[in-house]
Amino acid sequence: MNDGLIQNLNELFQAKARLGIMTVLASMGESDFLTIKKQLGLTDGNLSAHLRVLEEAGYIEIEKEFVNRKPKTTCRMTPAGREAFLHYLKELERIIQLARKGEK
Amino acid sequence: MNDGLIQNLNELFQAKARLGIMTVLASMGESDFLTIKKQLGLTDGNLSAHLRVLEEAGYIEIEKEFVNRKPKTTCRMTPAGREAFLHYLKELERIIQLARKGEK
Repeated sequence: MNDGLIQNLNELFQAKARLGIMTVLASMGESDFLTIKKQLGLTDGNLSAHLRVLEEAGYIEIEKEFVNRKPKTTCRMTPAGREAFLHYLKELERIIQLARKGEK
Repeated sequence: MNDGLIQNLNELFQAKARLGIMTVLASMGESDFLTIKKQLGLTDGNLSAHLRVLEEAGYIEIEKEFVNRKPKTTCRMTPAGREAFLHYLKELERIIQLARKGEK
């Protein structure tokens, strides 16, 4: 029996856009709005909405400042976000390992 | 630039329940309704709905028969389902690898 196969997968990271945002932030440390947008191919509105969900969950922090009089939005993971995301990655790896068991 | 970070992730497998169903079928070859239900902790209605989505996509086939006068539902992946799921697992692994890059 394997009762916990999917229960521990954090629903917040199941949305492709949010998985993408966390992956960009995890790999780059921090990133600005435009970079994330380009990497994920999202619209402004869509990216903003997903960033807000992650911010409200306490998983990322968003800093707005002016650089050369242009607004710049920088995002980074919080320690809680990093911990939750690493836990999520581990769960994914466990599931992938199980799924690949049947390959041989 | 990495324009394809999340675009190739098959939306059908992003639902936790469907990821779980495919994982069970991939690891066990085939499985019956009750076993999948127990492994994933889903309700009958919920599991049925997700199985139907996967069947309609051509990713699994569902066989109903009577065993000792009791109905038994057996599910297995189709070749197309296996191919799509293996592709999905590869995409996930690529994303995980990228996310883990920033760990060091």
